[in-house]
Amino acid sequence: MLSREENALLTRVDRGTPMGTTLRRYWIPALLASELPEPDCPPVRVRLLGEDLVAFRDTRGRIGLLDEYCPHRGASLFFGRNEECGLRCAYHGWKYDADGRCVDMLNEPEELHFKEKIHITSYPTEELGGIVWAYLGPPERRAPLPKFAWTQAPPTHRHVSKVIQESNWLQGVEGGIDTSHAPILHRLLTNTSNRPGIKPSNPFFRGKAPRLVVDLTDYGYQYAGIRPLDEGTVHIRAYKFVMPFHQIRPSASDSGAFVVAGHIWVPIDDATTMVYNWVYSDDEPLSDADRLERRAGNGPLDVDQTTFRSIRNRRNNYLLDRQVQKTETFTGIDGINTQDRAIQESMGAVVDRSREHLGPADKAIIQARKLLLEAVKTVEEGGTPRGVAPTYYRLRAGEGVLPRDADWRQLLASDVSRAEILQTI
Amino acid sequence: MLSREENALLTRVDRGTPMGTTLRRYWIPALLASELPEPDCPPVRVRLLGEDLVAFRDTRGRIGLLDEYCPHRGASLFFGRNEECGLRCAYHGWKYDADGRCVDMLNEPEELHFKEKIHITSYPTEELGGIVWAYLGPPERRAPLPKFAWTQAPPTHRHVSKVIQESNWLQGVEGGIDTSHAPILHRLLTNTSNRPGIKPSNPFFRGKAPRLVVDLTDYGYQYAGIRPLDEGTVHIRAYKFVMPFHQIRPSASDSGAFVVAGHIWVPIDDATTMVYNWVYSDDEPLSDADRLERRAGNGPLDVDQTTFRSIRNRRNNYLLDRQVQKTETFTGIDGINTQDRAIQESMGAVVDRSREHLGPADKAIIQARKLLLEAVKTVEEGGTPRGVAPTYYRLRAGEGVLPRDADWRQLLASDVSRAEILQTI
Amino acid sequence: MLSREENALLTRVDRGTPMGTTLRRYWIPALLASELPEPDCPPVRVRLLGEDLVAFRDTRGRIGLLDEYCPHRGASLFFGRNEECGLRCAYHGWKYDADGRCVDMLNEPEELHFKEKIHITSYPTEELGGIVWAYLGPPERRAPLPKFAWTQAPPTHRHVSKVIQESNWLQGVEGGIDTSHAPILHRLLTNTSNRPGIKPSNPFFRGKAPRLVVDLTDYGYQYAGIRPLDEGTVHIRAYKFVMPFHQIRPSASDSGAFVVAGHIWVPIDDATTMVYNWVYSDDEPLSDADRLERRAGNGPLDVDQTTFRSIRNRRNNYLLDRQVQKTETFTGIDGINTQDRAIQESMGAVVDRSREHLGPADKAIIQARKLLLEAVKTVEEGGTPRGVAPTYYRLRAGEGVLPRDADWRQLLASDVSRAEILQTI
Repeated sequence: MLSREENALLTRVDRGTPMGTTLRRYWIPALLASELPEPDCPPVRVRLLGEDLVAFRDTRGRIGLLDEYCPHRGASLFFGRNEECGLRCAYHGWKYDADGRCVDMLNEPEELHFKEKIHITSYPTEELGGIVWAYLGPPERRAPLPKFAWTQAPPTHRHVSKVIQESNWLQGVEGGIDTSHAPILHRLLTNTSNRPGIKPSNPFFRGKAPRLVVDLTDYGYQYAGIRPLDEGTVHIRAYKFVMPFHQIRPSASDSGAFVVAGHIWVPIDDATTMVYNWVYSDDEPLSDADRLERRAGNGPLDVDQTTFRSIRNRRNNYLLDRQVQKTETFTGIDGINTQDRAIQESMGAVVDRSREHLGPADKAIIQARKLLLEAVKTVEEGGTPRGVAPTYYRLRAGEGVLPRDADWRQLLASDVSRAEILQTI
Repeated sequence: MLSREENALLTRVDRGTPMGTTLRRYWIPALLASELPEPDCPPVRVRLLGEDLVAFRDTRGRIGLLDEYCPHRGASLFFGRNEECGLRCAYHGWKYDADGRCVDMLNEPEELHFKEKIHITSYPTEELGGIVWAYLGPPERRAPLPKFAWTQAPPTHRHVSKVIQESNWLQGVEGGIDTSHAPILHRLLTNTSNRPGIKPSNPFFRGKAPRLVVDLTDYGYQYAGIRPLDEGTVHIRAYKFVMPFHQIRPSASDSGAFVVAGHIWVPIDDATTMVYNWVYSDDEPLSDADRLERRAGNGPLDVDQTTFRSIRNRRNNYLLDRQVQKTETFTGIDGINTQDRAIQESMGAVVDRSREHLGPADKAIIQARKLLLEAVKTVEEGGTPRGVAPTYYRLRAGEGVLPRDADWRQLLASDVSRAEILQTI
Repeated sequence: MLSREENALLTRVDRGTPMGTTLRRYWIPALLASELPEPDCPPVRVRLLGEDLVAFRDTRGRIGLLDEYCPHRGASLFFGRNEECGLRCAYHGWKYDADGRCVDMLNEPEELHFKEKIHITSYPTEELGGIVWAYLGPPERRAPLPKFAWTQAPPTHRHVSKVIQESNWLQGVEGGIDTSHAPILHRLLTNTSNRPGIKPSNPFFRGKAPRLVVDLTDYGYQYAGIRPLDEGTVHIRAYKFVMPFHQIRPSASDSGAFVVAGHIWVPIDDATTMVYNWVYSDDEPLSDADRLERRAGNGPLDVDQTTFRSIRNRRNNYLLDRQVQKTETFTGIDGINTQDRAIQESMGAVVDRSREHLGPADKAIIQARKLLLEAVKTVEEGGTPRGVAPTYYRLRAGEGVLPRDADWRQLLASDVSRAEILQTI
C-alpha cells in the first residue's frame, strides 16, 4: 500500500516531475531499430515520458531523435522529408541534422544567417540489441550504455518486439516482477490443452504458495520464488529486477530449450506504456516460431506492426472465451502476455495503490517501490541512482527443482555479474 | 426552472453526493435476471450510481454483487472465474463469496490466515420480477423490497427489457411523467400509417392542451392529464410516479388489449442511464410480438442485447428519415421510446434547468422535483424518504374518455393501493 | 512570438471572450446556401464560435438561425419540424419563426397567451455569394454586409465549398496569408508529375527567398512576396488579408486561366474551423472540373458532403505516400489545401505561439496578429474594428514576373477598392 502522494510520485513521468527527472537519468528504449530500416527512410513518431518526438535515420545511417515540432511555427516534423543528412520540415523547409542543428532554410535568404540561431531539442541515441536507446537527461550526467547480455547476442540468437499497454508503466513493472501470479493467471486446467500456459504437471504449478527471497544489489535486485513440493524438494524461479524498469526471467524457446527473456516497460506517458519483449539463447539460434511469439501473444500475428496495438485489447475484452475459461485455461484469454496486459489494464490507467492489501507474496513488489522511491530521493539530492552504472553485463535468470535446503543462487551460476549481493531480505 | 445548484443537487449520484445518498436508500435495479441465466455462468459488469461493480450467480444460484476491483491489487473481477460458490480473481486467485468474504487465496500459504482479514464491498440483492435488485445504502436502514404488481405477475404475463440512455437519469424521469408530450412527439400524421404512434383519430390526439391534476401520496403521486374533447367529454390519461424513478402508465398489448406498463430510470452515472421497460397483463398472456417491442423500439431487433445500446442512437441521428417526418410521423424516427430517448439525449448529458421556461403543462415535472428535493432533505435530517416503505403493491394506471364532470380516479378503480391521497394540487 | 496570454486572447472565441466579442462584430459565414436548398427543407445544425445553432429556410424562403435548444426544456430543434413559416420543436410543439418569436404551442391552452412570453435567441442572416452569413453581435452595431467582388459574380462564374479543419481558426488564417510556404509545401519535385503542385519550371518555385512588403489599409492589408529571379526580374505574388479571417489570392482555373480565389476561416469553436473556399472568374464561366476542386482537395470527391470532413485526415495521416514524397511531391500528400490542413493540424489544436521563432518571411503573419490585437482593443474601447465597414467591394489579388524595380501594385490595377493604402511596411 502506498499513500496517494507516493502513488502519484511513482507513476507520473512528464518532464519536471520527480520520477520523470529520475527516469531521464537512465538510457531508455525509444523504438525498434527495425523501424528505421535504412538511411533516409521515413521518419517515425515516438512518444516518450510524455514528450512528442520524431526519429529518423539520416543519409549516413545516424539516428536523430528530435522534438516532433519545428521551432519555427510548430509544424510536425513527422510530415518532414528525410534527405541529405537531415530532416526537413515540409512547411518552410527548415532542416535539422541528427544533433538538432538547423542546417538549411528555404524561406529565408542565406545571407541573413538566421538558421544559425535555431536549434531543435535533440536527444543522444545509440543502437544496441535491436533497439534504439535514448538519453533524455542532463548532458553532463550521461551514463554509459546498459550492455545487457541479451544486447550482446548475435541477431540469430536474439529477438526483440514491442507492444503498447494501455496503463501506467509501474503496473507493468509490478506484474513483471511478481512471480506469484505466474502459475495462477497463466495456468492451464488440463495437461492435454495445446494452448499456451502452465500445465498441472509442471512443478511450478504444483508448488505451494511461494516464499520470496530478495537479494539487493547495486543494479536493483535478484529474487527467488521458492515453492515447496511434496517430495522434500522446492521449485525455484529466480528473476532480476534491473532499475528502473527491466525484468530478466528464465524462459523456454519454442522447442523447449532454456533461454533468458525479459521485458522493459517504457512510459509513453502516464497512462500508456511501450512494452519491449526480448529473448536470447546462448546455444541454438532462435527459430521462426520463436520470432512469431504465439505463446506470448507479442508477435506479428497478434500485434499490428504499424500501431503496435494488440488485436486482443480492452475494447474487445481481449477476445475472452468463457467456454475456454471453463475448460482449458484460467482466463479464457489466449497468450501469456496478453493475459498480463488484460489483467494489468483492467486495474485502470493508474491503479489506486492506497486501496491495496498486500501480503508476503508481494515482497518483491514492495521492494521495487522502495528502490524507486530511493532513486527519486538520490536524484533530488544530486546523486546517481542505483542501476545507472552498467555493472550488470551478464545478468541471468534461472528455474529448477532443488533439494529443500540447497541455495537457489546456484541456478544463476553462469551469472557473471560483478554485482555484489548487498543484503538479503 | 431550477437554480444551477438545485440542478446539480438533483442530477449528481456518486457516492457521497446528497442525491446519491438518497437514491441509495431505495432498492435499485442492477441488471436483468436473464443476464445471469444459470449457476456459475460468466460474471457481468454492472455500473450503478457511478460505482463499478460485477455481478455473478454462484454454484447454488445466489447472486453476488461486488466491487469490480479485487482488494489485493485492483484487478477487475470481470476477468475472474465463477466457480464453487465464489468469484475468483484471475490474477492471484483470491476468491470471494456472494457476501464479499474472501474464502480462498492461491498465492499465500493457508497457515497465514491472511484471507480472514480481507473483505470486498458487496451489496445485498434480490431477484424479483425478472430483475436483480440491489441495495447500496446503510445496512441498518435496508428497506423491504418494492413488490409492485408487475413484479408479482407470472413470467407468461410479464415482460422486462432494458436499454442505455445517454443522458442523466432525471431527463428520463421527467420525460416519463410528462403526459403532455405524448400526443405531440409520438403523433402520426395520418390515420393510415402503419408506423408506431398516435393516430389523428385517437381521442388522446384530438384532445386540447391538457389540464393536470396531481394527487400526492406516500409513494410519490398519481396524476391525470385531462384533455377536453369537443363532445362534452374529456380524455383522461392517469399515471403514477413512484419515488424515486418509477413510472406506471396505461398501455396496450400488441393485440390492442389494455395492459399496465412502466419504466425505471436507473443512473449508471451522472451522464448515463439504464432504462428498464416492463409491461404486464392481468388477463391474456403476453405474445411473442409483445416481447419484440417493435412499437417501443426497446426489443432485441432494435437494441443490441450484449451492450444494451440501441441501433438508433446519437451518432446516427436515430436513423431520422426526413421524408417520413414530412408525411407520416412527427419526428421521422421509428419507435415510441426511441423518440423519447432521441429528444431527451438531444438536451445534452445534463440539461441546464436554469434556462427553462416551464408552463402549466409541466406541473407534474415541477412536483416530482419538489418530492426529490424533499427526499434529499429528509435523508439529510436522518429520516426515511417518501416511497421507501412498500405500500404500493397494486398501483395501476388508466386511460379513457369520460363525461366532463366525472372523477378520473374511477379509471384507477382496480388500484387497490392502500395509499391515501394526501393532497390534490 | 506571442506571450501565452496573447495567444489565448487571439485564439479563444466563445461568447464573452475578448476575441469572441470582436469576431461577433463582423458578418460570419454560417453555412452554404445550398445546404438549405428549398423552403421547408430539413433544418441543419450549425456550430459557430462555440455556439450550437440550427438553421432553417422557412416556407417563404427566409432563413432562420436559432439557438439549437428549445427554451422550454432544452430539446434540440435539429429534430424539429420545418413547417408553415416556423421551426417546431418535436417535444411539445413549440414553434419559432425566423426572428425567434414563439408563434405556437401544442401543449398549452391558447387562452393562456404563454407563447407571447417566449423568445429564442435568433441571429440575422443574409444570403450572399452562395453563403448564408450571420451576425452574432449587438443589434445596434450591426454592420453592412461584406459585398466582396466574388459574392457579386453570377453563379456560373463563382464556386464556393467548405471543409472542416481540426485546429483553431488562427492557424488557418496564418497559413493562408503566408505566401512564404507556398512554393515549399506545395512544390513538385519534377516538371513531369501530374499531381497538383508547383513545378520546378514555375518562376514562383525558382525564385529565391521572398522579401515581403505590406500595405496597411482600412480593411486589413495587401501584401506582396517579392522573389528575385536570376534574370534581373522578380516574381510577385500579391494577396489581401481582409479582417478578421478572409484571404484573397491569385489563382488559376482548371484550364489555366487567371482567376481570383480565397478562403475564409470561420471558428466552429476554439479547436475546430470551417474553411470556406471560393473562386470566381471575370471572364469565362467556371467548368465542372473547377467545381470538383481536385487540385485543392476541397471538392465532393475528397470531402464528405454531409459531414464536410476530408477523407484525408489526421487519423489516416492524410493518406501520406512516402514513395510519392521521395519522388514526386514535397509532402507525399495529395491536394494543395489538404497539404495546408495537414501541416496546420499537425501543430495541435491550438499551437503554442510562445515557442515560435519567426523570421523576416513571417512579416505578414506578425502584422495580422497586430491588427487582430488592435481590433480587440478597439472593441473594448467601444469603437468599430478595422474591416467592419465594407469599403472593399472589388479587392483583387495578382501574380506575375516584373522587372526588378517595377511597382508590384500594378498587378492589382483592376482592383478598384476605394481603400487607401495607409502605410507601407
